[in-house]
Amino acid sequence: MSDSNRITERITFCIKGELWEQIPKFFEELHPADIAEIINHAPSSTHNKLFDLIDDSIKPDVLAELDDQTEADILEELTDEEISDIIEEMAPDDAADVLGELEGKRSEEILELMENEESEEVRELLQYDEDTAGGIMTTDFVAASATMTAEEAIDYIGSLEFDEPLYYLYVVDAEGRMTGWIQLWELLKQANRNLSLEKMAEKETISVHTDTDQEEVARLASKYDLSSLPVLDRQNKLVGRITVDDIMDVMEEEASEDIFKLAGSNDSELEDTSPLQACKARLPWLLITLGTGFVSSLILKSFMNHITMSEVVALSFFVPIIMAMGGNTGIQSSTLIIRGIALGASHSRKVAKIITHEIIAGASMGLICGATIGLWARFMIAHNGPSAIAPSFLAVTVGIALFSAMAFAAVFGALVPVLLNRFKIDPAVASGPFVTASNDIFALLIYYGVTLAMISAVHAVV
Amino acid sequence: MSDSNRITERITFCIKGELWEQIPKFFEELHPADIAEIINHAPSSTHNKLFDLIDDSIKPDVLAELDDQTEADILEELTDEEISDIIEEMAPDDAADVLGELEGKRSEEILELMENEESEEVRELLQYDEDTAGGIMTTDFVAASATMTAEEAIDYIGSLEFDEPLYYLYVVDAEGRMTGWIQLWELLKQANRNLSLEKMAEKETISVHTDTDQEEVARLASKYDLSSLPVLDRQNKLVGRITVDDIMDVMEEEASEDIFKLAGSNDSELEDTSPLQACKARLPWLLITLGTGFVSSLILKSFMNHITMSEVVALSFFVPIIMAMGGNTGIQSSTLIIRGIALGASHSRKVAKIITHEIIAGASMGLICGATIGLWARFMIAHNGPSAIAPSFLAVTVGIALFSAMAFAAVFGALVPVLLNRFKIDPAVASGPFVTASNDIFALLIYYGVTLAMISAVHAVV
Repeated sequence: MSDSNRITERITFCIKGELWEQIPKFFEELHPADIAEIINHAPSSTHNKLFDLIDDSIKPDVLAELDDQTEADILEELTDEEISDIIEEMAPDDAADVLGELEGKRSEEILELMENEESEEVRELLQYDEDTAGGIMTTDFVAASATMTAEEAIDYIGSLEFDEPLYYLYVVDAEGRMTGWIQLWELLKQANRNLSLEKMAEKETISVHTDTDQEEVARLASKYDLSSLPVLDRQNKLVGRITVDDIMDVMEEEASEDIFKLAGSNDSELEDTSPLQACKARLPWLLITLGTGFVSSLILKSFMNHITMSEVVALSFFVPIIMAMGGNTGIQSSTLIIRGIALGASHSRKVAKIITHEIIAGASMGLICGATIGLWARFMIAHNGPSAIAPSFLAVTVGIALFSAMAFAAVFGALVPVLLNRFKIDPAVASGPFVTASNDIFALLIYYGVTLAMISAVHAVV
Repeated sequence: MSDSNRITERITFCIKGELWEQIPKFFEELHPADIAEIINHAPSSTHNKLFDLIDDSIKPDVLAELDDQTEADILEELTDEEISDIIEEMAPDDAADVLGELEGKRSEEILELMENEESEEVRELLQYDEDTAGGIMTTDFVAASATMTAEEAIDYIGSLEFDEPLYYLYVVDAEGRMTGWIQLWELLKQANRNLSLEKMAEKETISVHTDTDQEEVARLASKYDLSSLPVLDRQNKLVGRITVDDIMDVMEEEASEDIFKLAGSNDSELEDTSPLQACKARLPWLLITLGTGFVSSLILKSFMNHITMSEVVALSFFVPIIMAMGGNTGIQSSTLIIRGIALGASHSRKVAKIITHEIIAGASMGLICGATIGLWARFMIAHNGPSAIAPSFLAVTVGIALFSAMAFAAVFGALVPVLLNRFKIDPAVASGPFVTASNDIFALLIYYGVTLAMISAVHAVV
């Protein structure tokens, strides 16, 4: 690895100094994925120049690894003929990904220039939604009839012009429906060589349909420890397979998606880094927060009518604490539930159990934090000399309010994703900013609710 | 899939009704990963009973898939002999994972009961830190000398008693150092059959060392599209390989870790779901938030000395808005940077570029939100009749303050993870709660700073 780091540094140096003629010999020593990374990070004005310096034989591999924005820059400058030559050498799924980034008319022109067999496969793949198994599968797979022996299957595989990683031989019937699979290494075993595929094949296979969501694909691969997954069409005919590189990409993509959603943004930010794009991704949730802020300002204002101005002032010192604690507690319990759902772990956990868990956790943490803030409030006000509000009254009020706000936030934060999931809404999408915003308001209402209750209780006693 | 869902439902029904005798026949129809999932989700009092009902031949596979807590429950009730029998049938890395969960003395007793060859491999694996390549690798791999032909290699692989997925044949020299690799399917090609491995092998291989961090392992596998990775010791001798299931586990684990860290918690919550554990994971960051709250209450109090009480009240309506907006803006830009770093994308992005990006994004969003809140403040106060503070003065102050707080939060939120990463501190660990907490305080300081500046400006004019 240190070797490729050193070469990368030299290339970066050459790009800065515009020493183009030195770059091709460095590129030769690098993996296509490393070259792609260098181009991704180079200034966009150099993208075409750099791509041009790559040896033709690995251009397809590099193109497949570029990020969307860089790829778009480069495709814009290439002729249709050049693009068609490059993507003919790519795996059909990678070729379809490239064409999917182009506008329909241009993509059609390029398909016309490609060899028939190749373009047909790509056309087929282009019809699937890019977030489904069909959208990430490749049509390159190897299938054999159940009557073949292992020995024959080995020879058959050896005779194919196949250039993509191959781990499974799929066994199909006369209609092309998958009846089982065999891992390549199991075919090689001496004891198996004369057995028919029928006898050897694993019948309990895991497969997906072309319209299966890619998140489910990744979940199945991870659960059943699979390096690739067969894809069936609506008639259960085997039409493709999803390879490990795409499975890993999906896992990263889905994790990014959840992380960005929790922060009230989206993962398009990872690709396109213009500030405008950032605003577009982030503003909607900030505006929701802003809206919540309007509500909280109204609550504060209306509350003012019920107590004296000096009481308002003393209480206002603790507004930020109570809101921040409510928001954070809520987001912590949301996160637990959302990630659990994403990993397929919380499907069968009962709502009642989750609520009990969060009530206990939220109440315990609220007790500790509430007691602490109560002491702090007592200390702060006492050291301020005479105040309009009795220090111990304030301390108890603030402590109870924080305790209640946290216990509520923990339960609310857990409930929202559970309910969203039940109504088939992605729990990550709204939970982060929505839970934080709602807990802000509820925390404020609880705070003033407790205060008013305490005041009327004191008056009743007096 | 619907089949296994139906069986799962029936088993869940049997568990509830304690119809134990019916369960084994349902288990027979399920994949070990499905059985493990059922046991994970069943009440812990039934864990041992259920494990006992599994056919002995698949107990090792099920045990390898259980979550840590359930596994611990079951191991506690099994005898050392039973455990040793089960883990002898597991891949060495899975066996080491099981023993790693037991206390040292018991683990040693079980190792004594195992066959020598098997226990030696496991002992070797137990010495590595569980978050490193050594900790997740298995010692089952196949290596051959470069002088062999492809045909000979096929026969050699076929003669092995090998029971784990195998995709690569590693080529090693006399000292056991890896000199290249060949994918299994490439061995099978007719054109290659008589070639020596020396000629065929890919020399530019990607490998890791036993002490490589598991996050780096996942990053390499994903970058170079690899379904497994060879592991070398300090003398560059080939000692193991990391298989695709472990790579996928690491990817999920690392994503979970980052998500939980961002929320101020940790991913131990996914495993152990007791409320006490939840408190332990979440409280530290809540206490930091609480500490920040103390500071903000002091700021609010000291500020009170500089302006009139009715000014304090009018300004206090907008404290929650400004703090919430600052916190959210900061967390959004932190998230972008943290995820970029985790995916290896932001390594070479320059700090200056990131800051410029975030200044523009933060300032634009601040402009929009600042103008909106300014109008809102004007509206709110105007409709409240005569106030101690001039409505347009308040509107301008609040608008400018929100704009400044958001622009600052965007830059600060981006800078913190960049700097943590530069000092080799995991940027996810502190960013979430730390950035939110700091931005809360800065937002408050900015708010009152702007107010005081405005007041003295107005006085100067008057």
